[in-house]
Amino acid sequence: MNYKMMGRFHALILAILAVFMIPAMIICLLDGTAKTAVSFAVSMALTAAVAALLALISRGAKRDFYIREGLICVGSSWIVISFFGCLPFWLSGEIPGFLDALFEMVSGFSTTGASVVADVEALSRGALYWRSFSNWLGGMGVLVFLLALLPTGGRNEGFTMHLFRAESPGPEVGKLVPSLRKTARVLYLTYIALTVANFIFLLFGDMPLFDALCASLSTAGTGGFGIKNDSMASYSPYIQNVTTIFMLLFGVNFSCYYLMLLGKLKSVFRDEELRMYIGMVVGAIALIALNTRHLFDTLGETVRHAAFQVATVVTTTGFASTDFDLWPTFSKTVLLLLMVIGACAGSTGGGMKCSRVLLLFKNLKRNIARILQPSRVQVIRVNGKTVDEQVVSNTGAYLAAYVILLIFSTLVLAIDGHSFETTFTAALSAMNNIGPGLDAAGPTCNYTIFSPLSKIVLILDMLAGRLEIFPVLILFSPRAWRKK
Amino acid sequence: MNYKMMGRFHALILAILAVFMIPAMIICLLDGTAKTAVSFAVSMALTAAVAALLALISRGAKRDFYIREGLICVGSSWIVISFFGCLPFWLSGEIPGFLDALFEMVSGFSTTGASVVADVEALSRGALYWRSFSNWLGGMGVLVFLLALLPTGGRNEGFTMHLFRAESPGPEVGKLVPSLRKTARVLYLTYIALTVANFIFLLFGDMPLFDALCASLSTAGTGGFGIKNDSMASYSPYIQNVTTIFMLLFGVNFSCYYLMLLGKLKSVFRDEELRMYIGMVVGAIALIALNTRHLFDTLGETVRHAAFQVATVVTTTGFASTDFDLWPTFSKTVLLLLMVIGACAGSTGGGMKCSRVLLLFKNLKRNIARILQPSRVQVIRVNGKTVDEQVVSNTGAYLAAYVILLIFSTLVLAIDGHSFETTFTAALSAMNNIGPGLDAAGPTCNYTIFSPLSKIVLILDMLAGRLEIFPVLILFSPRAWRKK
Repeated sequence: MNYKMMGRFHALILAILAVFMIPAMIICLLDGTAKTAVSFAVSMALTAAVAALLALISRGAKRDFYIREGLICVGSSWIVISFFGCLPFWLSGEIPGFLDALFEMVSGFSTTGASVVADVEALSRGALYWRSFSNWLGGMGVLVFLLALLPTGGRNEGFTMHLFRAESPGPEVGKLVPSLRKTARVLYLTYIALTVANFIFLLFGDMPLFDALCASLSTAGTGGFGIKNDSMASYSPYIQNVTTIFMLLFGVNFSCYYLMLLGKLKSVFRDEELRMYIGMVVGAIALIALNTRHLFDTLGETVRHAAFQVATVVTTTGFASTDFDLWPTFSKTVLLLLMVIGACAGSTGGGMKCSRVLLLFKNLKRNIARILQPSRVQVIRVNGKTVDEQVVSNTGAYLAAYVILLIFSTLVLAIDGHSFETTFTAALSAMNNIGPGLDAAGPTCNYTIFSPLSKIVLILDMLAGRLEIFPVLILFSPRAWRKK
Repeated sequence: MNYKMMGRFHALILAILAVFMIPAMIICLLDGTAKTAVSFAVSMALTAAVAALLALISRGAKRDFYIREGLICVGSSWIVISFFGCLPFWLSGEIPGFLDALFEMVSGFSTTGASVVADVEALSRGALYWRSFSNWLGGMGVLVFLLALLPTGGRNEGFTMHLFRAESPGPEVGKLVPSLRKTARVLYLTYIALTVANFIFLLFGDMPLFDALCASLSTAGTGGFGIKNDSMASYSPYIQNVTTIFMLLFGVNFSCYYLMLLGKLKSVFRDEELRMYIGMVVGAIALIALNTRHLFDTLGETVRHAAFQVATVVTTTGFASTDFDLWPTFSKTVLLLLMVIGACAGSTGGGMKCSRVLLLFKNLKRNIARILQPSRVQVIRVNGKTVDEQVVSNTGAYLAAYVILLIFSTLVLAIDGHSFETTFTAALSAMNNIGPGLDAAGPTCNYTIFSPLSKIVLILDMLAGRLEIFPVLILFSPRAWRKK
């Protein structure tokens, strides 16, 4: 195991984290919330010191990096940044318990948006900004950010590709341009441009500057940390509609935007995953609006709430404009289904991803065809291209891992004795990085009701959901740590 | 499509069904429940007449039978026997609506045991016997029964093997002895012997003769139709314990009993699936007893109820000795997990089957190993033998089909507006052929609360669960009916 190279890698990640804490500290200084400002300064110093120490002891690291090390780094780096990232919450006392602070940070980075804070309006603006920013950074990924800065190519190319793959959601991850560094840059530039557009549209709706900043950061990462106790319910219909549209935009595969910029509109509109995503969203809005029409005064209001809830759930953002836990069972079940499916691969949204569900359906169809005509060779095609059998097999393994993890988590959470609906949907929500579940884990509630053991399980679920399970499983696999 | 051969096949199945109605009719005559006796007579006559008609028009059928026809026959024959089998319930007015009567019959044949009858004690003994007998016949399978009678081999061998496979649960189905007919006979003889043993043990506990007959038939098929409104709750602890043990015995792969008869005890105890099954049962009983110890007076009573509920759920029988819907969430979640996993392959129990879950775990482990060491070829071994990759791939497809069907069913059931817990567990219970779910579908409730549309979905779920999904999917697949 090349521990020195792993040390170097973690040093870089921590250095980036320390730099990102600066704006939060400045906000605290401007607001005069001295205690939180000091906490950010101390956390920054500590993070930077550990980074420097790691860099120091891993000097002269050999550049030979195997897949194993790369995979372990993915999982461990997310745990490490969550650990250091939660220090400001804990040191300032804004979130008293360390486990709670860690939960909040993992929820932020994994873009889940589940909170243990009952009264978010009591938090300082610096802490609120840091929560929303964690959604933004976690959305596109801190490793992808690192890749956009680092020189790649040569011996490093294989390793960095693994990092890129591990953090980019979806069954198949490809580079947009031949260079990985350029791909990472294109992704982040598109991401920043869309975030800024969202911010400007919110300002047009007379949203306060700080509110618009936090809302656009949380929306971009499809994280869903709000700065109001009622999430987005008290904002104007215009602001809610803008948020609906941008949540849906951030749920689209970013390569579609790149293709649009290149003028390849045809291949964008022919994309099977995008078509499935759009069809699913429109269908779900129609079904839910029909099912909840008696709850609202006008058709416009019904559609607005239906669209907002569909967008927040399918992109796994987790904002709320109304308490959908009070909706009829049919609407709740549609929302649960959207939670599981999730957004497109290569977007900032979570869930299983549309393309995986598409592959599962196509594989099922092939299996029936195989039973009927065993002698004929059958391949799976997406967008006209044959899908590699390894990808099909991995998708099956992903589903199995997903189901097993979901069942196991539900079982541990059940020890707390909350209702089955609360228990099951909390695990589902954490694994799909949504935020709210149903019943006592619903949109108007928070996760303080769970025991420390349950919180630890939910923390691992959130990380597993964001990194698509395998990097977290590998971290706990004895085989990965075994000496060769 | 060889329609004539398909007609011949259905004629045989219906003839068997008509003969099996005789004992029920005799019970009615002995009891003097004339209307029901007449209904059985009319149903028998009708069934026999249709069988004769089918046999007549399919004279001179060519013996060329393709897989397609075989697969379609499996699904359609189960629908046809359910249709004719429910006529006595409907004609006698004991179950007034035709859809309800059909639901009850499918629930019986699929060994689900979910009932639409609120007061089963009001039914005639003929009808009660017919319900319990449907559990027994459905348990080992009507096609397997047919195979035990029919001459096989030669041109028919391939086709009959398909029938056998479709009805025998589990990922891999093998013959016990070289001849399929003998295998079917060995299976049925073992089945009859165990049923008789159960019957005798129940009689030792002073259970009334008729009660013991029905209970042993329902237990053998792991169906769970009871003849009392409180299922098994009012019977003595001895009777409950005997039932617990026999439920668990019927959940074991029948090939284990055959190996025992041959004296190959070593290979029985080394069987990985059996070990998993035993470990799971013991573990679940311990966990639930610990979790529910405050609900009962003595340790003995706690363990008795825990063991009964674990046995009834893991073998997907569905009897009740107490209302487990009132138990803590943790115990309920353990029971839900056992529902999904189910019993061993090659038993009369339902669910996903232990061997499938074992394969999914082994495949997951292999996938992690593959990520870590992509160049090494990895095979999956069960009981020391390499598992065919096709079986692994089919298991993955089965899980996908299972999840998709479960989600789709929950969605349609949700239209009725019952709680999420009721909706989800009713679908789960039907698909796994258990019977009771939780909340309004719990052990003390029945399925009358559902709309006709939901009942149709549940009927298809029960059939899909019993036949392991694909034969039912194929019945609705346009490709199967397409002309070549």
